[in-house]
Amino acid sequence: VKTPVPPVRALRWEGEAPGGRLVLLDQTRLPEAEVELRLDTVAELVAAIRRLVVRGAPALGCTGAYGVVLAGQAALAADDWLARVETGATALAAARPTAVNLALGIRRVLAVARRQAAAAEPEACCRDLLAAARAFHAEDEALCAAIGRHGAALLPRQATVLTHCNTGCLATGGLGTALAVIYTAHAGGGIREVLADETRPLLQGARLTAWELRRAGIPVRVLCDGAAAGLLRGGRVDAVLVGADRVAANGDVANKVGTYPLALAARAAGVPFYVAAPTTTVDLACPDGAAIPIEERDPEEVLGALGRRWTPAGVGACNPAFDVTPGELVSALVSERGVLEHPDRATLAALLGAGGGAGGQADTAASSSG
Amino acid sequence: VKTPVPPVRALRWEGEAPGGRLVLLDQTRLPEAEVELRLDTVAELVAAIRRLVVRGAPALGCTGAYGVVLAGQAALAADDWLARVETGATALAAARPTAVNLALGIRRVLAVARRQAAAAEPEACCRDLLAAARAFHAEDEALCAAIGRHGAALLPRQATVLTHCNTGCLATGGLGTALAVIYTAHAGGGIREVLADETRPLLQGARLTAWELRRAGIPVRVLCDGAAAGLLRGGRVDAVLVGADRVAANGDVANKVGTYPLALAARAAGVPFYVAAPTTTVDLACPDGAAIPIEERDPEEVLGALGRRWTPAGVGACNPAFDVTPGELVSALVSERGVLEHPDRATLAALLGAGGGAGGQADTAASSSG
Repeated sequence: VKTPVPPVRALRWEGEAPGGRLVLLDQTRLPEAEVELRLDTVAELVAAIRRLVVRGAPALGCTGAYGVVLAGQAALAADDWLARVETGATALAAARPTAVNLALGIRRVLAVARRQAAAAEPEACCRDLLAAARAFHAEDEALCAAIGRHGAALLPRQATVLTHCNTGCLATGGLGTALAVIYTAHAGGGIREVLADETRPLLQGARLTAWELRRAGIPVRVLCDGAAAGLLRGGRVDAVLVGADRVAANGDVANKVGTYPLALAARAAGVPFYVAAPTTTVDLACPDGAAIPIEERDPEEVLGALGRRWTPAGVGACNPAFDVTPGELVSALVSERGVLEHPDRATLAALLGAGGGAGGQADTAASSSG
Repeated sequence: VKTPVPPVRALRWEGEAPGGRLVLLDQTRLPEAEVELRLDTVAELVAAIRRLVVRGAPALGCTGAYGVVLAGQAALAADDWLARVETGATALAAARPTAVNLALGIRRVLAVARRQAAAAEPEACCRDLLAAARAFHAEDEALCAAIGRHGAALLPRQATVLTHCNTGCLATGGLGTALAVIYTAHAGGGIREVLADETRPLLQGARLTAWELRRAGIPVRVLCDGAAAGLLRGGRVDAVLVGADRVAANGDVANKVGTYPLALAARAAGVPFYVAAPTTTVDLACPDGAAIPIEERDPEEVLGALGRRWTPAGVGACNPAFDVTPGELVSALVSERGVLEHPDRATLAALLGAGGGAGGQADTAASSSG
């Protein structure tokens, strides 16, 4: 199976360093308009991250990595180059303090700054920072590609696939996770149609997944989240494919709210339920789903959508950001290392052990990056 | 258990007949404004029904019954009184041709017109029509009250109850079906909180259920439909209570899309899943859920909400109006005749047989009345 080129990029670096800039696709304008923002300073980038111009844990990681390059460029003429870079990195991380991947990308490039600052001129250091950021981005893209290849082999020809939230090019530095599987299968001629849950409350499915799949020429229809179970029962779906915010040591999966009912309905209908995520999402330190705290988000998200409110004044809402799917409902975990059927404590430990010490970095806080 | 007075009325007759009028609460203005419309003619009522000023199968039935009284009043001075009433009734039924209950209410009062037209003056006939419409309405109110009494006995004290769509005062001529249970339990001090699914795509839960429960002083919070399963798994709900559009002979339940995943999640969590509906909803002529055709509604409903569109141009939607919950997931059917635990072919036949020939009138077309 050949890996297709990502049909769209959430972010890219333009030019070299020093002198280059970060280009973000403004996701707040989608699907109405495709607008790129060119950012030259950390302050601009912090504002963009706060406005959710870019979201999705892996995409935020890459954004953070390039953000440190912006900090390095801005400090070229300063005596205290490294101190300025550190200040910029701190400001960047504070733009979304709960986004673990953002911090991860920042840390990787900041480490290079610390290592090189004494040995080289700021200009040379900037080149090194950009190389580190590009490497971080390339790693993410490679993870996506590998997940796509392994997952595509699971789908029948001309499959109808149901997915949830946005786990594609807009959420990562490459093809995505669950959507990487769909892109790769489609390149091999294997997708009849994607059914995309609209994914209330923030509508990432209706707004973003529908947009990027249509742009890639893949047939897609949107449905209300509550309609998925009936479609599965009706025998119209070959597989359910979702991402993950965190996989516990026993295989329990925390993901965007609305994932768990899909797993129940898939099981009842005898349809496979696949979770696509890099092994960094597996957290062996987390024993099971019960140990994962459920983040409760702003009720306003539920009381309306996109600025329009339709719930009566004085009525509150319950707004858990994600839910937990028991590991026994997961048909397979598709990671960059391959397909792990029926993930459980023993097989997950073996998967991580075999490839050497991943795990532990993932955090449910990443669930707020969707 | 004492039956409370309905906190709000979807419809009522004002004055006597001739000379009276039908008053509808304009549900298209809810929850922003509580506006009553006074209707004197069939033409006005047809327009109101088309605009969805009134919805919900039982409420449409009562509306149809009173509509025939309007037709009788308007024809008072005509030589061909009965012919005019027939014409009005036909126009009324055509306002929502798939709403079975609307036709049912019209038929009941029209039969009185046909019986009395030869024997009495139009003015006396109008009094008879109003008496028939009031009787039809009173029957619906009594069904609601009985469902409420039987269902309330099932709930623990200070229960947290999860519900879907709107099955209350706004949908019926009385307290509702699933919400009648909640109103009655609350009058006995038994409701801690109602969790109301927003019920995409038309948001009857967020707009209507939240409004009428709040107006009645019952604590209510709204949630996205996809969040219900996780809350059930988290042990925060004592019972799920929903209505039904049609119950097949084997106990399979067709109801508003999004009901079936609630039943799956309730079963997985060990939480009882109750269906509240009058026995007229049971259709012994329908062998099982597979025999119920799934109405597909306008994709536009899914592509946005309340006039605002958020899905990219060119992307379609899948919009089944309801789904089918297998009878084995139903803990009990709560009807006006009592609580039927684990409804199946034998127990449903016995239930209907015992009370004499109900069933057969229900039709899934009523699902379009929500």
